[in-house]
Amino acid sequence: MSGFGLQNLPYGVFSEPNGERRIGVRLWSSVVDLSVLGGHLAAGSLNPLMAAGRHEWTAAREAVDDLVATEPPLIPLRDVTLHLPFEVADYTDFYSSEHHALNVSQILRPEAPGLSPSWKHLPIGYHGRSATVVVSGTPIQRPCGQLAEGVFGPTRRLDVEAEVGFVVGVPGRRIATTDFAEHVFGVVLVNDWSARDIQAWEYRPLGPFLAKSFATSVSPWVTPLDALATVPPLVQDPEPLGYLLPPGPGFDLRLAVEWNDTPVSSPPFASMYWTAAQQLAHLTSNGASVRTGDLFASGTVSGPARDEVGSFLELTRNGAEPVKLADGSLRGFLEDGDRVRISATARSAGGKQIALGSVSGTVVA
Amino acid sequence: MSGFGLQNLPYGVFSEPNGERRIGVRLWSSVVDLSVLGGHLAAGSLNPLMAAGRHEWTAAREAVDDLVATEPPLIPLRDVTLHLPFEVADYTDFYSSEHHALNVSQILRPEAPGLSPSWKHLPIGYHGRSATVVVSGTPIQRPCGQLAEGVFGPTRRLDVEAEVGFVVGVPGRRIATTDFAEHVFGVVLVNDWSARDIQAWEYRPLGPFLAKSFATSVSPWVTPLDALATVPPLVQDPEPLGYLLPPGPGFDLRLAVEWNDTPVSSPPFASMYWTAAQQLAHLTSNGASVRTGDLFASGTVSGPARDEVGSFLELTRNGAEPVKLADGSLRGFLEDGDRVRISATARSAGGKQIALGSVSGTVVA
Repeated sequence: MSGFGLQNLPYGVFSEPNGERRIGVRLWSSVVDLSVLGGHLAAGSLNPLMAAGRHEWTAAREAVDDLVATEPPLIPLRDVTLHLPFEVADYTDFYSSEHHALNVSQILRPEAPGLSPSWKHLPIGYHGRSATVVVSGTPIQRPCGQLAEGVFGPTRRLDVEAEVGFVVGVPGRRIATTDFAEHVFGVVLVNDWSARDIQAWEYRPLGPFLAKSFATSVSPWVTPLDALATVPPLVQDPEPLGYLLPPGPGFDLRLAVEWNDTPVSSPPFASMYWTAAQQLAHLTSNGASVRTGDLFASGTVSGPARDEVGSFLELTRNGAEPVKLADGSLRGFLEDGDRVRISATARSAGGKQIALGSVSGTVVA
Repeated sequence: MSGFGLQNLPYGVFSEPNGERRIGVRLWSSVVDLSVLGGHLAAGSLNPLMAAGRHEWTAAREAVDDLVATEPPLIPLRDVTLHLPFEVADYTDFYSSEHHALNVSQILRPEAPGLSPSWKHLPIGYHGRSATVVVSGTPIQRPCGQLAEGVFGPTRRLDVEAEVGFVVGVPGRRIATTDFAEHVFGVVLVNDWSARDIQAWEYRPLGPFLAKSFATSVSPWVTPLDALATVPPLVQDPEPLGYLLPPGPGFDLRLAVEWNDTPVSSPPFASMYWTAAQQLAHLTSNGASVRTGDLFASGTVSGPARDEVGSFLELTRNGAEPVKLADGSLRGFLEDGDRVRISATARSAGGKQIALGSVSGTVVA
C-alpha cells in the first residue's frame, strides 16, 4: 500500500515536458491534474490557494474529492517534474526536540551539557535563508567554508536534520495557539542540511549562518492539515506562559531516514516538546507578521533511542561511532555521492495510515 | 545645503494621493518623477532596475542626468508618500564593528569580555526577518516578549542599532570581493530596532530571534553605489583568508543619531572592521545564492568614542548611565512616543559632501 490513497491527496506543483507548472494532488503513483478545476487551482503555485483561507481550502478539498471520485485525469509520476510547491516567504527553524537539544549539548559542549536556560520556557528558533529552500531531488553541492581557524575548504562534516515543516497560508500577527489551523495550510518534510565544522566555528554569538544557508530541502507534496489526525501533545513542565496555551494539537508522525537506501533511524514526531501551534504563537508574539508562504520547521526530530535520532551528528556521536550501511561501508558523516531520503507515515483524520511526501537529496562534490 | 543636489540623486518609490507607485530620484526637497523615462524606470519598485545590472544602471543614470539637466518634473516631497523602495528577498545582518562587538561583550558578558574566537577570521552574521523590513516613518510598536523567566510583557529595554545596508541587484553565488560593484546596486540607512531584555533571555544557543524580528526600518532613498567615493578599508590583522581578499572598498560615511531631535551620537562607518565586499563574499562562499532585493546590513556602526556608538545599550551602558536630552529629560532606553532619526553624510564620487536618506521611527505603545 502506497500511503497515497484517497484519504491523503497532498498538493504539489508539476509540469510535463515543455509544459507550464500546474497544481496537482498525488494519488497512488500518479498526479491528478487540478488545473481543470479552475480558480486558485489553475495557478502555477500553491500560494493563491494558501492565501485564500480555510473556507476556500475546504471548498477545494471537496472539489478534489469529487474529481477523483469520477474519472480523474491521472498522469504517471514518472512523466512529470515536481517543483517547489510554494514560493517561500520567510523561513524559520525551531529547535523543539528535547532529546536533540540534549544530545547536541552533550556531544558539542561536553564541558557544560544541558539545555540553555530558556529552553523549557520558549521554543528557541532562528531565521534561515529562504533563497536556498529547494525541492526534493535537487542535488546538494557540498558547501565550502571556514572549517576552523585558517582553514577554508569543503566541509568534512556534512550532516542532515530530519524535520517537519509547517506552511503558512493566511497572514497574521499575534496568532493564538487556538487559531493555528486558520493560518497553517499544511505540512512538508524538511531536510535542513548542516555543515557541523562550519557551524562550530561560526555560531558564537549570533547562531548558525553559513553552516545551514547553502540548502534546505522540502518534500514536493504539501499534506493539508485537515488530512492529519491530531493527538494530545506532551505534558510540559514547567507550564508555559499564557500566550503559549493551550498548547494546540500534536501530530503522530513517524519519520524514517534512509542513508543510501539503508534505514538508519525512525524519529518520532510525537516526542517533540513544543507544538507547531506554540511555535507559531511565539514567532508572532512580538508583533512580527507571517505571510503566505512562510515556512517554519520543527527543528531536528529526535526520540529517546539511538535509532530515533534525526541527525548523523547524534547517530554517529560526531563521527566517533560510524554506522554500517547495507553495502558494508562505514559512515560518520556524508560522503560525495551519498543519498539521504526522509519519509514519514501518519494517521489520517479518517483513521487510515497515510504517507507524507518524502524528501531526498544526493551529495555532489 | 541639503545634501541632495545633482551629485546625489538617490532612487526611491513614491505615490501621490490615490496614485500608483512610481520611481523617482530625490533632488533638494522634491522628487523627480522618472516614470516618464519608461523601461525599468516605469515600474512600481526598484527591483526590475536593480536586476538589470551595471550596464543598465549606468544607462539609467545618464537618462536621469539628462532629465534633471533640462526642466525636470519636480513634485514637492510634502505632497508624496514614500514607500519601501524595493521588495526585500532575504535580509542578513552582520556584526562587523569591532568597537560595537567589544562594547556589547563588556556590557552583557562582563565575566568573559572579548571577541568570540572567530570574530577576526570571518564576518559574523545571521539571518533576519524580511517580512518586517519597513520604510522610514513607519511607527514602531513596542514589542512584547519574554523578558525573563516567567515574565511576558512589553519590552523595557527597547533600543536602536544604526547601520548601513547594502542592496543586491544582480543575483549570484560565490561572489568575489572584486565583483562587489557588479552585484550591489546601492546603499540605505538601517535601524535594526532591538529589544535587549528579550534578546538576553532567548539568544542561547541559536542567536537573536524575536528581539529583532518585530521591525527593521530602512531609508526610503537608495543611494547608488556609483554616487559614493571609496576610501581604503581598515588594515586587518590577522590577514583574512584568500576568499576575503582583496578586501574591497571602504566608504567614508558619518552617521548621526538623533533622539527626540537631540543629537546623541555620530558613528563613523569608516571604522568598520569588515568591508561590505567581504560580507557579500562570505555570505555566498558556501554556495548560497543572493537574489535581487537581498538586503545585507553592516551591523551596528560604533566608533571608539562614547559619542560615536550606534546603540543606546552602549551609549547608556545598558541604561546605567542615562543621557540627557535637549528637553532636560533623561533616557536609558526608548520610551513610548520617542523618535529616533539616523542620517548620514558622505563624500560623493565627484568630491562633494552629500547626504544619505535618513531613517526615522517613533515608538508607540
